[in-house]
Amino acid sequence: MALEEYFSDFTDRDWERESPEGRVRMAVVGIGGFARERALPGIQDGTYCETTVLVTGSPGSTAEVAGEYGIDHVVGYDAFLAGEKREAYDAVYVAAPNALHGEYAVAAAEAGKHVICEKPLETSVAEAREVVSACDDAGVTLMTAYRLQCEPTVRRTRDLLADGVVGDVVQVHGGFSNPLLDHASPDTWRLDPDLAGGGALVDLGVYPLNTVRYLLDCDPDSVYASTISTDPAFEAVDEHVAFQLEFPTGTTASCTASFNAHASSQLELVGTDGRVRIASAFGGVVPHEMIVESGEMRMEHAGEPVDEVREEFDYFGYCVLTGTDPEPDGRDGLADLRAIKAAYDAAERGERVSL
Amino acid sequence: MALEEYFSDFTDRDWERESPEGRVRMAVVGIGGFARERALPGIQDGTYCETTVLVTGSPGSTAEVAGEYGIDHVVGYDAFLAGEKREAYDAVYVAAPNALHGEYAVAAAEAGKHVICEKPLETSVAEAREVVSACDDAGVTLMTAYRLQCEPTVRRTRDLLADGVVGDVVQVHGGFSNPLLDHASPDTWRLDPDLAGGGALVDLGVYPLNTVRYLLDCDPDSVYASTISTDPAFEAVDEHVAFQLEFPTGTTASCTASFNAHASSQLELVGTDGRVRIASAFGGVVPHEMIVESGEMRMEHAGEPVDEVREEFDYFGYCVLTGTDPEPDGRDGLADLRAIKAAYDAAERGERVSL
Repeated sequence: MALEEYFSDFTDRDWERESPEGRVRMAVVGIGGFARERALPGIQDGTYCETTVLVTGSPGSTAEVAGEYGIDHVVGYDAFLAGEKREAYDAVYVAAPNALHGEYAVAAAEAGKHVICEKPLETSVAEAREVVSACDDAGVTLMTAYRLQCEPTVRRTRDLLADGVVGDVVQVHGGFSNPLLDHASPDTWRLDPDLAGGGALVDLGVYPLNTVRYLLDCDPDSVYASTISTDPAFEAVDEHVAFQLEFPTGTTASCTASFNAHASSQLELVGTDGRVRIASAFGGVVPHEMIVESGEMRMEHAGEPVDEVREEFDYFGYCVLTGTDPEPDGRDGLADLRAIKAAYDAAERGERVSL
Repeated sequence: MALEEYFSDFTDRDWERESPEGRVRMAVVGIGGFARERALPGIQDGTYCETTVLVTGSPGSTAEVAGEYGIDHVVGYDAFLAGEKREAYDAVYVAAPNALHGEYAVAAAEAGKHVICEKPLETSVAEAREVVSACDDAGVTLMTAYRLQCEPTVRRTRDLLADGVVGDVVQVHGGFSNPLLDHASPDTWRLDPDLAGGGALVDLGVYPLNTVRYLLDCDPDSVYASTISTDPAFEAVDEHVAFQLEFPTGTTASCTASFNAHASSQLELVGTDGRVRIASAFGGVVPHEMIVESGEMRMEHAGEPVDEVREEFDYFGYCVLTGTDPEPDGRDGLADLRAIKAAYDAAERGERVSL
């Protein structure tokens, strides 16, 4: 296949093989910044989901959000767990702090609701496993909300790699930094290790981690990491992390994440016969500029930004409506949690940790 | 200082504070590919050096090269060590296989000749230290041939960093891959651990290693590495390496090098308030495209390629003629060898090694 053909229908939803009727009615659980700024607009813009219930700890301010989106029902967390308005939704999107994912996801599954759960699935492998089991037992769809897997630049890169356009991938570099306290107060749950399960690695490092695993279609067999906190605001969690994933194929991925650096992201894969670079791989709705080299050929692609959050919810809705198993499933979420746990162990022990 | 001012006189030789008379007469020791393709033309194009002697193990083929450059003298290695044509040169450029650097550099120093020695200085810290001592004792100039330190993109980046344009550097990514066997035969000394002292780390990884140390003006205090060889042609040395440098400031540098991947290089530094990216940082005479972000400002610079090998020899010649101590001195070369040794130890032991 000629190199330009990968770009000729760049935003093609290759997963959309039929056109199911109807919409999945969503309860959005946890109305924080990401839910308000990205998830609710993304769901509204899409085809296969609609938000019918907001679940929140702040009913007052959430009522305003509900009004803005024409959402009829706002319920508190306890009421949600008690089953209130259960008839008004088919699925839940769990965007509460990480340590609460399990409780809400398991409750939803036990009520027969499908689940799309923010990453990481939970704060420990054991608790994440409970989510997976509950969804398996209930026979409901479970998707881990890895938005990048629905983003065209990443999907086209995966196609290129699978077709051997760059040969065997030898080395990967991935980085994601975002200055947390520019848009969150110092008491954010993201800096509470009990609620978040970690710091920059859990919140940002999981993007290169999951995306590299997805692109290579392979799991690392060992990991090394260093966690660094120098600013007192970040003393309870990792402010910065640098980690190195080692795959059974011999491929390595050198990854970084930071809560306290200039907003920036990058992803670069060098293979035996080429290279792919995505300029702002993880940064949200920005032009995803991409360079592909294959032997002597070189192409640059600068596509319009695509709202991968809209894509993500449409993919979830499509999977529920058609009975398709989502690619970023519970096992995908578990694999990242195992790698995160190993990375923290590696950082503490100062050694390579096998997975 | 406004961001654009760093680029207004991009190729300025900020080290050239006077205009010394004369030229340093060079004996080039080891007439391999790099000497023929880069060093001899670079010296010829420059101002402060001239090649007067070639020292080689292959006098026949070297005579042709000598003719091409109008060089009067070709001597063998043993003759060089015995002092032949010593009166015809003031300094030596040691470009022989790494394990021979010490013998030739020490002989030159003992004869009162200045030395510019390819990196790494030697194959072990102990042998490199002998080179440094011999040059110190003889009172001659010793420069380790880190061409990147004479390359304008790197020098301007160093200026930007020193002025705090990107804040404190938090995380660095550096990679350099070059498919060795595309331009060398499988019996190249670079694949002989006794002659080379290592593989991709020694030959290519030393570029991000040295450049990051130079740019940060800081030495790492620990290192982790993984070395990988999957192709039988590379079984004696590291075919690929991924290493992570950890600095006392909390900065990390995630670096890779490969002997068997698509030709590619990159350097990216993310700071608390900005970012610098050099697209092809280590790849030789290619356009050195550079992106600088500082707070909300962004600049791209795409300068004409500069022959950093010419710059390197002119800098060496200038240092000799003016009695200036070169920045990439023997201690700089020793620091990299210590880090390389620690990286190989780390790879073998699977743990972080302190420096």
